Amino acid sequence: MHKDIIEKVQALRHFMKQEGFAAFIFPSTDPHQGEYVPAHWMTRQWISGFDGSAGTAVVTTDDAALWTDSRYFIAAEEQLRNTPFRLMKDGLPETPSVTDWICETLQAPKSKNAEDLDETANEKTVGIDGNVFTEADIKAMEAAFGKAGIKLRTDLDPAEILWTNRPPIPKNKVEIQPLEYAGETAQSKIARVRQALREQRADHILVSMLDEIAWLLNLRGSDVHCNPVFVSYILLTLHDVTLFIDNEKLDDATKEYLQSIGVGICPYKKPSTENAGTKAALNPIPEMKAIKNETEIRGFRKAMLRDGVAMVKFLRWLKPAVEAGNETEISIDRKLTELRSEQALYRGLSFDTIAAYGSHGAIVHYEATPETDATLEPKGLLLLDSGAQYQDGTTDITRTIALGPLTDEERLDYTLVLKGHIRLALTRFPDGISGTQIDALARYAMWQHGINYGHGTGHGVGSYLCVHEGPHQIRHSWKPAPLRAGMTVTNEPGIYRAGKHGVRIENTMLIVPDGTTEFGSFLRLEPLTLCPIELAPVIWEMMTCEEADYLNAYHKYVYDSLSPLLDEEDRQWLQAQCSPASCPTGLK
Amino acid sequence: MHKDIIEKVQALRHFMKQEGFAAFIFPSTDPHQGEYVPAHWMTRQWISGFDGSAGTAVVTTDDAALWTDSRYFIAAEEQLRNTPFRLMKDGLPETPSVTDWICETLQAPKSKNAEDLDETANEKTVGIDGNVFTEADIKAMEAAFGKAGIKLRTDLDPAEILWTNRPPIPKNKVEIQPLEYAGETAQSKIARVRQALREQRADHILVSMLDEIAWLLNLRGSDVHCNPVFVSYILLTLHDVTLFIDNEKLDDATKEYLQSIGVGICPYKKPSTENAGTKAALNPIPEMKAIKNETEIRGFRKAMLRDGVAMVKFLRWLKPAVEAGNETEISIDRKLTELRSEQALYRGLSFDTIAAYGSHGAIVHYEATPETDATLEPKGLLLLDSGAQYQDGTTDITRTIALGPLTDEERLDYTLVLKGHIRLALTRFPDGISGTQIDALARYAMWQHGINYGHGTGHGVGSYLCVHEGPHQIRHSWKPAPLRAGMTVTNEPGIYRAGKHGVRIENTMLIVPDGTTEFGSFLRLEPLTLCPIELAPVIWEMMTCEEADYLNAYHKYVYDSLSPLLDEEDRQWLQAQCSPASCPTGLK
Repeated sequence: MHKDIIEKVQALRHFMKQEGFAAFIFPSTDPHQGEYVPAHWMTRQWISGFDGSAGTAVVTTDDAALWTDSRYFIAAEEQLRNTPFRLMKDGLPETPSVTDWICETLQAPKSKNAEDLDETANEKTVGIDGNVFTEADIKAMEAAFGKAGIKLRTDLDPAEILWTNRPPIPKNKVEIQPLEYAGETAQSKIARVRQALREQRADHILVSMLDEIAWLLNLRGSDVHCNPVFVSYILLTLHDVTLFIDNEKLDDATKEYLQSIGVGICPYKKPSTENAGTKAALNPIPEMKAIKNETEIRGFRKAMLRDGVAMVKFLRWLKPAVEAGNETEISIDRKLTELRSEQALYRGLSFDTIAAYGSHGAIVHYEATPETDATLEPKGLLLLDSGAQYQDGTTDITRTIALGPLTDEERLDYTLVLKGHIRLALTRFPDGISGTQIDALARYAMWQHGINYGHGTGHGVGSYLCVHEGPHQIRHSWKPAPLRAGMTVTNEPGIYRAGKHGVRIENTMLIVPDGTTEFGSFLRLEPLTLCPIELAPVIWEMMTCEEADYLNAYHKYVYDSLSPLLDEEDRQWLQAQCSPASCPTGLK
Repeated sequence: MHKDIIEKVQALRHFMKQEGFAAFIFPSTDPHQGEYVPAHWMTRQWISGFDGSAGTAVVTTDDAALWTDSRYFIAAEEQLRNTPFRLMKDGLPETPSVTDWICETLQAPKSKNAEDLDETANEKTVGIDGNVFTEADIKAMEAAFGKAGIKLRTDLDPAEILWTNRPPIPKNKVEIQPLEYAGETAQSKIARVRQALREQRADHILVSMLDEIAWLLNLRGSDVHCNPVFVSYILLTLHDVTLFIDNEKLDDATKEYLQSIGVGICPYKKPSTENAGTKAALNPIPEMKAIKNETEIRGFRKAMLRDGVAMVKFLRWLKPAVEAGNETEISIDRKLTELRSEQALYRGLSFDTIAAYGSHGAIVHYEATPETDATLEPKGLLLLDSGAQYQDGTTDITRTIALGPLTDEERLDYTLVLKGHIRLALTRFPDGISGTQIDALARYAMWQHGINYGHGTGHGVGSYLCVHEGPHQIRHSWKPAPLRAGMTVTNEPGIYRAGKHGVRIENTMLIVPDGTTEFGSFLRLEPLTLCPIELAPVIWEMMTCEEADYLNAYHKYVYDSLSPLLDEEDRQWLQAQCSPASCPTGLK
């Protein structure tokens, strides 16, 4: 069992012995700190066999351990069975940190055996591939290990030597994102970054985040699952911009474009900043990228129209199809993707669709597999979180759909989530406050019922870039980045009852100015997403007139926007979905 | 003009020259980091003449400057005229920090004159009285000055030598706070602190905050304005507790008590921790002190009854008195204090009363002086923020009172503040979240009208201790300390219109458990303060039935609690004030 893992660890230990390593660390990160790691950098999965999205493997000369968090305890237990790795349950009070464990393990007196006599130096060395850690992480590790008299070596990647058939770094072609979608030239963006450098009295910045590079240069790629980015680095100084990229990825037109905007090209590798200057800038790109320009906002609106058409066609199709039988989580995902792919400027999904029926809805990051794929029945709730990449904008929408009769608890949870979603959408708030400072408004209604959810309430969405984009978030934990006009942000409260159901209602919103008074400037969230919100599950006695008014106004906006783009049958269906809910009597 | 300030600075410079100082810093802090500074430590006021609550004076051999914030720009300008001090406006982008200014000033090439030739060493020395800064502040200064090649000397206080008639350190007697009010013996508290030390693997803690010392030893004093504390330090190790205090402050009974609980006594000075151990603990006392025990909570309830009786007598008296004429901000403050002082266990005010009429209400920390004292007229709003120290509990209450006809804007602002106050009081929230995470609920209603306020929404209140108590707060800016059952916290949103009026409505609340569900434990705020909230200004069309219900329930609670303690006339007045507001029609 797991002979390959045992053999790999043996080979690694041989290599470590030769090179003088006492331990080697394999994280789940890549050199570009993105949400998805290209296969080339999945060294932790390669050495340990554990395939969760988060985890750190450590191999010492006579021990091996893998850290992962509670989402993966069961899967990891399974996957690590009969391997040299023991599971370290991250987040439990008794679990040591990776560095603490290494310090303790390496300092423990070792059994005196023949092999140990080979060791000549007393100083232990821990190895990492320095490319896949941030500078801050490396400094923190150096400090922790330094106290224990342990050295950190960062310049060797054993997978480069030991991993046979290692997937190559993707070499997909880079494409130019035209100004009609980008709305600002790369030269102008570069000039703004340089201005920020000057304001900070800094002289250079090394950009390793792939979406920042794509945004800055108005280029897109296809190297990373669901994210239209390409593997590269940028080193930007007050005088030069150099793109470190594999030459094969650039066709002549792109090379010409790069030359025309004054960007030099070097082979792909992490740039040395030694000659770039003495002071690195704090990265100004995340906030610049987060604030969409007028062209990008127009693009979002157009993309939402197309995405809304696909969603309407899908939703009209869905219930009869479920009633006819034989539809599953995977089959409806396929159907929805097909409808989206028929839309103009479609470039792929912005993330893997979450189509989660019944109790699967309570698994927050559920992705149906052939083993779990549930057949949809005409009852209960379907949670459907999906989105697409269009060249003019990225979409992210969640609808929770009643496939038939619901329990009282399902209706209650649906109504509370909807109330939270609407409250946040109705909130006017001071310019520049952080998302943490308004997060409670999405939770208030459910808190009153003793209900809460563990995920964030909102994240930025890129313009034909990553669907999860910073620096701002609407989140319970403290995220200081201010909310600013022009940013996109999702509004997605949820309720999850293990073994029963999940509810989430999500629109992508645009942060817009909402007037200035003697007390300052105010902002609010305006929905970009165009798709009806199901009203069948709503317990109207729990809704206020203000909330009903919001729903009516939103549905009028959806209908007015989408109806000209629909055929007659779809239009009639949408009209029925968007018909006004009258403000019920007995409202609080 | 200001001959005395000029002479003091001259004397100081002479002293600095003798001792080799290039600059000396006088902050507004004292050795115990309290809200009020005993006169003995007001060295910044002594050297500069500036008497604001916040400010830092710096004197160099040929320059002098005083930093203060925008609250005091006008007063400081006035008070520093014709002194050697120039005003540095803290918080403005062009204003350098104290350390930056000192570094630049000391590094600037000096005019070559005879005096300079005296200087033999190149290294400049900046002086502070190390006792009045925290360790962290000293370290930060050392780091900042170190980079500029400047030394920091902390062991000399020139005021000790130069300040003639310096007020002595208060020598008031210390009193025992009996167990019937404290609810936990000092031995038990000490044992809990030691347990926290062990959990942190620490071996000692130096306690310098006076309310922490008073809480830990179940002692009270009268050394600080409005705060029943006494000047001292505690050094606590796993084996010893030593109180550093002036012997004159202890009578025989207190000495005996201290001996009985195993607390040693040393003369007052900042203890050296050199022999105490190697690892200082993170201070566990603020959270321990913040969570009130059953006895303390019972004491709060009893104190609130007495405070409520005084408030009811005052409020019944107020409007006829104003109509009769000749009442002013100061005269009503005197009346209220008198009524409070008649109550059992009264020990003084918990802070200086804010009685702010009309436009004075917009000045958040207004304190009437003979020069500003306004005569109250039967119109407009009176903002009255006050509280008392009772031996069984500390009170803090704000009521905004309509003395007669109001403007529409006054009624709107009152209604929005009331809605915010009620919303926060109605909120059920997850156990352990921070006050920042619920702060928006008090602001939501006014945000919708483009209104906001700059102060915090709530602070802890001590048990016969400081009226402003940490570590938790309900505040817009990030305060991570969790809200826990048993903590007190105020609920005090406000609206302030410069030149017009101010509104604030404040109850002191107790954080209480509110059930556990599958989603975790929940808490809510229960009012401790017992005093009717004025309903005359309320715009009922803006209120919800839920809000009206809350007011009715609160008023029933107030009436039921206070009426047995009132004479017939007061009772009838209270009954009228607490009569139920019927849930109006047309509510949202």
